[in-house]
Amino acid sequence: MSLKKQLDYLFNPRSVAVIGASNQLGKWGYIILARLQASKSRRPIYAVNNREPEVLGMKAYQKVTDVPGPVDLAVITVPFQAVVDVMHDCVRKGVKVAIIITSGLAEIGGDGVRLEKEVVEIARKGGMRLVGPNCLGHIDTHTNVRTVGFLPGMRKGNVALISQSGNSSQSVTNYGGQMGIGFSKFVSTGNEADLHFEDFLEYLADDDETKVILGYIEGIRDGRRFYELAKEVTRKKPVVVMKAGRTDVGVRAAHSHTASLAGSDLVLDAAFRQCGVIRVDELSELVDVAVALLGQPLPRGRRVGVLAMGGGMAVMTADAVRRAGLEMPPFTETTMKKLGELMSVRWSRGNPIDPGGDLISFHALWPMLEDENIDSIIIVGGVGMISSFPDWIVLPDSAREGINERRRAMEEMETQDMEKTIALMKKYRKPILFTTQVIGAAKRGMAYRKMRENNLDFYSIPERAVATLRRLCDYSEYLGVAGKG
Amino acid sequence: MSLKKQLDYLFNPRSVAVIGASNQLGKWGYIILARLQASKSRRPIYAVNNREPEVLGMKAYQKVTDVPGPVDLAVITVPFQAVVDVMHDCVRKGVKVAIIITSGLAEIGGDGVRLEKEVVEIARKGGMRLVGPNCLGHIDTHTNVRTVGFLPGMRKGNVALISQSGNSSQSVTNYGGQMGIGFSKFVSTGNEADLHFEDFLEYLADDDETKVILGYIEGIRDGRRFYELAKEVTRKKPVVVMKAGRTDVGVRAAHSHTASLAGSDLVLDAAFRQCGVIRVDELSELVDVAVALLGQPLPRGRRVGVLAMGGGMAVMTADAVRRAGLEMPPFTETTMKKLGELMSVRWSRGNPIDPGGDLISFHALWPMLEDENIDSIIIVGGVGMISSFPDWIVLPDSAREGINERRRAMEEMETQDMEKTIALMKKYRKPILFTTQVIGAAKRGMAYRKMRENNLDFYSIPERAVATLRRLCDYSEYLGVAGKG
Repeated sequence: MSLKKQLDYLFNPRSVAVIGASNQLGKWGYIILARLQASKSRRPIYAVNNREPEVLGMKAYQKVTDVPGPVDLAVITVPFQAVVDVMHDCVRKGVKVAIIITSGLAEIGGDGVRLEKEVVEIARKGGMRLVGPNCLGHIDTHTNVRTVGFLPGMRKGNVALISQSGNSSQSVTNYGGQMGIGFSKFVSTGNEADLHFEDFLEYLADDDETKVILGYIEGIRDGRRFYELAKEVTRKKPVVVMKAGRTDVGVRAAHSHTASLAGSDLVLDAAFRQCGVIRVDELSELVDVAVALLGQPLPRGRRVGVLAMGGGMAVMTADAVRRAGLEMPPFTETTMKKLGELMSVRWSRGNPIDPGGDLISFHALWPMLEDENIDSIIIVGGVGMISSFPDWIVLPDSAREGINERRRAMEEMETQDMEKTIALMKKYRKPILFTTQVIGAAKRGMAYRKMRENNLDFYSIPERAVATLRRLCDYSEYLGVAGKG
Repeated sequence: MSLKKQLDYLFNPRSVAVIGASNQLGKWGYIILARLQASKSRRPIYAVNNREPEVLGMKAYQKVTDVPGPVDLAVITVPFQAVVDVMHDCVRKGVKVAIIITSGLAEIGGDGVRLEKEVVEIARKGGMRLVGPNCLGHIDTHTNVRTVGFLPGMRKGNVALISQSGNSSQSVTNYGGQMGIGFSKFVSTGNEADLHFEDFLEYLADDDETKVILGYIEGIRDGRRFYELAKEVTRKKPVVVMKAGRTDVGVRAAHSHTASLAGSDLVLDAAFRQCGVIRVDELSELVDVAVALLGQPLPRGRRVGVLAMGGGMAVMTADAVRRAGLEMPPFTETTMKKLGELMSVRWSRGNPIDPGGDLISFHALWPMLEDENIDSIIIVGGVGMISSFPDWIVLPDSAREGINERRRAMEEMETQDMEKTIALMKKYRKPILFTTQVIGAAKRGMAYRKMRENNLDFYSIPERAVATLRRLCDYSEYLGVAGKG
């Protein structure tokens, strides 16, 4: 059977059995069964428990072989001592894929290593594939299969996440939710006794629901295969990874976590670069970069224009741009002339733009987008500031009347400006990264809705926008977009 | 008059006049007068406008000399062409301090430089002190004087902020509000034509309401004075600064922002270290470090123990600790024995602690606090996870009954554990930095209230906690706390 067919059974099974289903609040067998029940899919779900006749209101079968219909996917949550017996049952039943949540296998060494080998042996002989052990489960938002009890923030969308850590994925999906991204598939790969990170990468490359692939990696089992595969995949869609285990203690901790043997971090770093994988430094950066990849054109060069709401932000953003190895060239004379007509005499007269005490206007973005010296733009502040002013300045009672009409009029203007800006951004194919200090207020505005319709979102600090832009530039150079007209 | 007396007039004036008070929504003279009105203090406020008889429902005086009572503090918002005349009026009136909001002076060069010199001359001759020009105003939460129209998030507290950028301060106070810190005083120093950053630093050193001083700096006017002063101040209370203008473009932008001439960044960096100033890399780090300084004992060494909710977080936190130049030694045999009794067989058996699939327990913190190999602790996840589970796992209908009692019982246990943990933290004088991925849920719990009573708060990602801990270690070493029993 092809890998694609095997993994189709994982992501779109005809039925799911939870082996080790439990009535005890907090147990994995409880959490997972409850989650499957809550998805209210028409796909049959079976509870397997060798002592209790009923679990969470459902009939429970003693063994998976007692289940009347076929079982494509089994989620195994029994203690590690019972895994071998359960695996034999699964083979007998004709289960196609098992997710082994159970921990206490290879990651604890000694007997655990031997036990894990035995389990893999049973699967291989029986024609089954395994996810885990020592993992959290998986999610497909499109087929509505969720074996992970957590991650309530995971909405349907086009970003896939392959994670060698279950708990880390919670950070990614929480922050992803805040940044407006949805997910297609998620899999927690655990010890990767059978199915490896690379298998999921191969599968997701051809998954139509997935436009961006994110990965959390502690160690790569088959470096050569990863390299060859990633080289192909990154031509089709971006692959962004957070690789942990960079230091002596980190490497040791990774081994006791998922039994992974991390290679030299420097070698891996070079390999990632050579196969076009975007490597980030922090987990949250996975989300930052995904947001930009979904909504922005790739920049054709490293030359950045900055428009900031004030001088301090202009200085710090300029520092961040330069420290990230990006350029901040002067504007062309044409742009300077246009900006001079637009701004008060107090403006900074150069790149970065600081309006010098006035509110910033979107209109300043337009000459920048047309400027042949500029490949991308970072705007700090501005959006939503005007329309949300009742939230951040104190108004006298006398001003409260009619404030809603004024606000609406201002919002309409701002929204029109945003529409024009997005149209120009697409026309000139130059990314614009939006940053705001008042993210709550900014997200309540009409202009933000326009942004969301175009898969754009706010970064909370300019440093995040700069770090993201740098990754876009690297990827763009790798693909050879950079430099092209 | 001593500097202290002069600045007392700024932070606790008998009366305030807004010169350039305006009826036009959005103008500085509107925003500032509205804010002063809203503070509902019994301190007289006067509106000065040379064309309109009434502003925001108040009688307006043509000139400040027309005001009947004495005016200690004048806030000047008139256009730069009118500043000289207004200054002469202020001297005539006997104004003690003026805040010049107006921009278009030295920061634009040429005529602006000459104009600023003239204004300072008038103030010197007339015995007045100046804040600004090109600034945002100031706030004293204890005397309830607020000439800044924004910064609604600024609550009363013990952190002072001196900022050479108005707009940057908004980031600091917004994030500060989220991290539970309150402010004593805030001043936006603008071009520092007269009063410099150093003057405020000197004043705040003896301010009883201020326990931590934060600064945003683009350039220091009098390096020698700053150095000598900071050396004294940092013995009394911590000074944390974000210095911007680190790169070629950043330095240029800083000059056009506040007319500051940034020196060599490397020289400044060394100077900061030698006088005990804690320098941070990002604006938000000012807040992170302030939170820790308010609530934590200073660590006596760089040896960190990590307790993480799962393996991925354990690995990434270990990486961050090592990359920050901190140490992660093994635990003592006694600690290992105690932990072995506490944890399941699946735990990571070392530092960092990964419970291996179980929920983490505060009890693991206690042997770590007693461990002579460990100076400080980072805990990732845990707090509020148990008590908030209905927010992040899907419960079956059958479990909804009685859930509140169970939750309450668990919260009570958790809160007791938190109390014991805080008591031990104080006993052993070892900081514990708390990190959570589910900050919203974690902050709704009872245990969090215990944390807040002790000025403790959550960091959203372990990298932030590690960066903060590193600053505490540096400061502790500077003060000579490190290494002492």
